[in-house]
Parts: sequence; structure tokens; C-alpha cells
Amino acid sequence: MAMNQFRRDPITGRWSIIFQEEYKIEDLISNTTPRRKKKSNGKCQLCGGFEAETPSEIFAIRDDNSKKNESGWKVRVVPDKQPFLQIYGDLDNRGVGMYDVLNGIGAHELVIESPKHNEQIYDMDLDQVQNVLFAYRERFIDLKRDTRFRYVLLHKNYGDGNDQLKNHSHSHIIATPITPARVKYELMNTREHYQYKERCLFCDIINQELEDDERIILQNDKFVALTPFASRAPFEISILPKQHETFFEWNNEYSQLAFILKEVLRKLSSTLNDPNFVMVLHSGPNVAAGKQRGYWKTIERDYHWHIDITPQFRGFTSFEIGSGFQINVISPETAARILREEKYN
Amino acid sequence: MAMNQFRRDPITGRWSIIFQEEYKIEDLISNTTPRRKKKSNGKCQLCGGFEAETPSEIFAIRDDNSKKNESGWKVRVVPDKQPFLQIYGDLDNRGVGMYDVLNGIGAHELVIESPKHNEQIYDMDLDQVQNVLFAYRERFIDLKRDTRFRYVLLHKNYGDGNDQLKNHSHSHIIATPITPARVKYELMNTREHYQYKERCLFCDIINQELEDDERIILQNDKFVALTPFASRAPFEISILPKQHETFFEWNNEYSQLAFILKEVLRKLSSTLNDPNFVMVLHSGPNVAAGKQRGYWKTIERDYHWHIDITPQFRGFTSFEIGSGFQINVISPETAARILREEKYN
Repeated sequence: MAMNQFRRDPITGRWSIIFQEEYKIEDLISNTTPRRKKKSNGKCQLCGGFEAETPSEIFAIRDDNSKKNESGWKVRVVPDKQPFLQIYGDLDNRGVGMYDVLNGIGAHELVIESPKHNEQIYDMDLDQVQNVLFAYRERFIDLKRDTRFRYVLLHKNYGDGNDQLKNHSHSHIIATPITPARVKYELMNTREHYQYKERCLFCDIINQELEDDERIILQNDKFVALTPFASRAPFEISILPKQHETFFEWNNEYSQLAFILKEVLRKLSSTLNDPNFVMVLHSGPNVAAGKQRGYWKTIERDYHWHIDITPQFRGFTSFEIGSGFQINVISPETAARILREEKYN
Repeated sequence: MAMNQFRRDPITGRWSIIFQEEYKIEDLISNTTPRRKKKSNGKCQLCGGFEAETPSEIFAIRDDNSKKNESGWKVRVVPDKQPFLQIYGDLDNRGVGMYDVLNGIGAHELVIESPKHNEQIYDMDLDQVQNVLFAYRERFIDLKRDTRFRYVLLHKNYGDGNDQLKNHSHSHIIATPITPARVKYELMNTREHYQYKERCLFCDIINQELEDDERIILQNDKFVALTPFASRAPFEISILPKQHETFFEWNNEYSQLAFILKEVLRKLSSTLNDPNFVMVLHSGPNVAAGKQRGYWKTIERDYHWHIDITPQFRGFTSFEIGSGFQINVISPETAARILREEKYN
């Protein structure tokens, strides 16, 4: 019986505990509640034709003759109906005794990724996946014009049981006046790596992974999808541009990314009984907000954008919450092989 | 409508988003699945009389005439039957390309907190709660003799749906060769605070909280239970010794702690429909392991042990996973008032 391993993630500095024994994939996916497909006449307020049920649109990719807030769109971005942050107001950065407080200023937008109910990214034709990526890009560029916001985060919660809209493909974009802790540690570790080695940490990882070829799921000229060495959860996946690129939104050619993203999500769904997953896009922070405060002067050499996809097979245990160690029962080498071959037995 | 707040936790450096509006407590606790009490003749392998079904005991508090691995015990500690870390072997700290790997060495023990099925800490008489705390202490002291282990973590998962033994009160003790990320950030922030102010960060927080009196749940001469200013989840609770104390296990008088712990858990259960919770005890790191490597020279002035209790009302959202921001719909001021008064309407 091989001994389990502690592995350190060089990007976040966290250690994971990776099982080295064989684990029955059936036991893992028996916990998944597959998305209920209401194929026939499922409709919801995000569907084409129901535009009046959402707040007024911020951005859309539309057919030539269609009008704002009417049907004829391909991708549509609207403010979230129940935002937990407000777009108007001052931050009012202040101390309360020894504590630090800011007003809950921020943006919370919904990207509706298709007019059709039940069309997921892995069902779309590649043109539509590209439209989705273009909509992300437009919102990143626009939100970063607001120098109150230090960070813009895109995330998708696929199959979340609490979400009435779970069968209609959508993502959330949130802009915050504070850099999230997770991103902060990434920025610290990438800067330190550059200072020491004069190379981008992510570029180093990509080179080593391409050479090792143990954790690559698929790749094309411009992008690679892999299972990280210290994966915190079974079948965790990262998608990265092979060439050094700090900001997702500085790109304007997404055909190769569309292919990799669609294909990775299709493999995940077909191989593991369509598990719930969380997808997060980490682009560089808002330089306009940082530079005026003297931050992030070296960000363009230090940071490398990426997409993280984490299937949700179970909640966290008390050990994981108390320690920050994640326990992962499937090694990333096994996960990459299963996703490459699309079979586990 | 009051604006939500970003609040920074001075101990971990993380920011939480705290709702300022009234939130319906009924909606929160409707998600809880109350512990199923099999009052009558529930029995399990942790019960008194079933000692042969567990691995041989490491430690027990027993009646005078009782024998090891037989009945007659009050608290009993055994190795976990399915440990994910192994006690024997070398760490074999090594690099794999650019990555860091250690063997999965560690201890994983189960503290069985009562011979009776269904007796939770809030049901016990205070002598028995003290016995539980003494058992924790004995294991902390013993495990820290092993200088391979930098940290010993105690945690309890109350009501975890995956746990067959959930109705039998027990905790886990895990010793690891690496300091957990969460503790590392606590150690960093407390050291920095001391260097700057020549005072312990936790002592400063306790003083401010006692003065503000907005987030105190209850207290006695030696201990205080409060809801942290930047609580990451509704009804998060910390219990701290009022006097500066680095290590839980250096104490040997637990009657006041037993009272506060029992009373806090009773309030949580009676007020919020017996929610699932995670309890973590953070004592100082293993000085014997650190000092020989030149770490933690100032730990005794910097760090202050504490117990964190976090009710589990829902899983994390994709935003929380991607950002590290926690969204908390009940302000700690409201939570403290509800727990003090044991009513929410």
C-alpha cells in the first residue's frame, strides 16, 4: 500500500493530502446529484422571451435587428436581482476600535450564457462558447474602469441545489473593493517566485507539466488543461494559456479556449455522471485601482490568468475547515488519466 | 436599508461580507437537518461494552477497578480505524521537479467523549465535560513529544451526515508534520501585531470586546465566549481564556471552561434547532518541533489558544470558494444577542 502524500501547491502555498491508494470512483460519484434535465418545455426567467423579468441589460451580443431588453440575443448580462453588494456609494474605509470596516460596495452581475433553457457550455457550438467568453471580456474591461474595484471575479456554480436557475447556463461576475485572500496569496507567491527565479511561476508549472505529461488532460497550440499537482479535490482542473498572459481580458481571440473549455466540461460530465462543479476565472487584479495606490507595479511579469474548475463531490470536513489542509482521495495523475480516456474501469 | 459591510478579521487577515439587514432566522435554520435522536436503545461501536470493536486504547479516564479495553471508562482515546495518515515512517521531505512532497506521516486519534450513546457535551454533567477536556490535554502533551509533528489539531464534526457515529459524542485529534495554512496565517498576524504594539492580538481583541459588550455571549472569571467581529458564518463562536495563555494543554484546571463550553453548545442547540457544527481547538504549535528548526522563538508572547465553533447551515458558494471572502447573512451583533437571550423573535 503506497503512503499518502502531502503536496504543496506552489501558487497558493497550501498543502493538500493526496491519497495514493486506489479509490472507488463509484463511491465518489454516488454522492453526486445529477442535474435534472427538464428537456421538453423547461422555461425560466433567464430564457429568451422573458427579458422583462430581469433587470435591464448591461451588455448583450445580439442579432443585428434585435432591440435592447427584447429577444434576439445570444449572450446577455444583467445586474443580479439580489445583489449582496451595492454599486453606488463610497467605500468609507474606516477603523472601528481596532477593527477595519468598508461599506459593501461592489458590482454583482449575471451572465446569461444562452437564450435556451438547458443548453450548457458543453452542449453549445463553438461560436456560442466564444460569444460567452467575449461577454466575460467586455464586462471585465468595463468594470475595471471603476477604480474603486481592485478585483473582478468570474465564477459559475453548476448544479447548486439552492439555485432555482440551475438548469439555465449562467455565471456571476463580482467586482470588489478588496483583493480576495485567495488571489492575494497567489499574487504574493508569484511575485516571490519571479524575484527569485526571474520567471513566471505559472509558466514554470506549465513547462514542467508538459514535460512530465502525467497530469495533462488535453491541449492545443495556445491552451492546456491539467490536474494540479496538489489538487485540493478529486478531478480539480486548471486551464491556462501556454504563453505568458496576465489578463484574460487582454486576449481577443478565444476560439482555442472555447474548444478546450467545452471539451473539458464535456469530459467531466460524461465521465463522472455530470457532477456539480464550481468554475472560477482568475485574471490579474485591476491595475488602474492598484497603480494609483502604488500596488502591483510588477504584475504583468508576475501573474498569469487561469480558469479553475472544481467538482463538488462532498462538503468540507471539520479537519479541512480547521486546518486549511484539503484531503483528496483521487491523485491528480489518476484523475488526468480518467479524463483523458473518459473511462474509469 | 443599511449597507452591508466588509469586515477584516485581524487574526487571519481575511475579509468577510456581513449583512446588515434583518435576515429571517427561520430561513437559515430550515436548512438544518436536526440530529436524529435514537433515544431508546441506540448502540454503536463507540458505546461502553463494545470496546473490542475499536483499536486498542491509547488513553482513558477510568473507574478505579476497571481494565484497559474493557468497560468502566468515562473518556477513551483510540486510533482512528481509517486513518488517512500513518504514524510510522519517515517524512522523506523531497522535491519532485519544482514541487514539494512529504510522506503522509501523522497521527489520527478518536476521543470517545462518553460511554453513553446520545450523550452530547451539552447533556453531560460538568465533571464529565472536564474529563473530556483532560483527555484532550493528555493527548496534546503526548503527541507533542514527537518532534516530527509541528501541529496538533483537535476538531469535532457534530451531525455530519456522512458519519455513522454521529450520535455518539466524539472528536478527532490529528497531528501533522506541517503547520496548517490557517494556523500559519494566525501565527504571522499575531507575531506582526506583537512586534508593532508589544501586546498580544487576542488579548487586545478580548479587551475591546469586553468594553464594547456587543458581541459577548457569556463569560465567567477566566473565559469569554463571543461572536467574532468578522464572523465568516452565522453564529460563529470563539471561546478564549481572558488571561494570556499560549497553549491549551498548559492549563490543568478546566472547571470554568467546562461550564462555558457546555453552556454555549446548549444555547446553540436550543436556540437554532440543534444545528450541525464544526468545533476546532487551536493551541500553539509544537514548540519542541519548531525550536529545533529555529521557528516560533517568540510564540509564547505572540499566540493565544482558543476554540472556534462554526454552525453549518449551508455549503460554500462558488464566489466564496474562488475568492476566500465569506458571506455572512447574520451580523455577529445580532447572533450574540440571539444566543444571549435564547430567542430570535
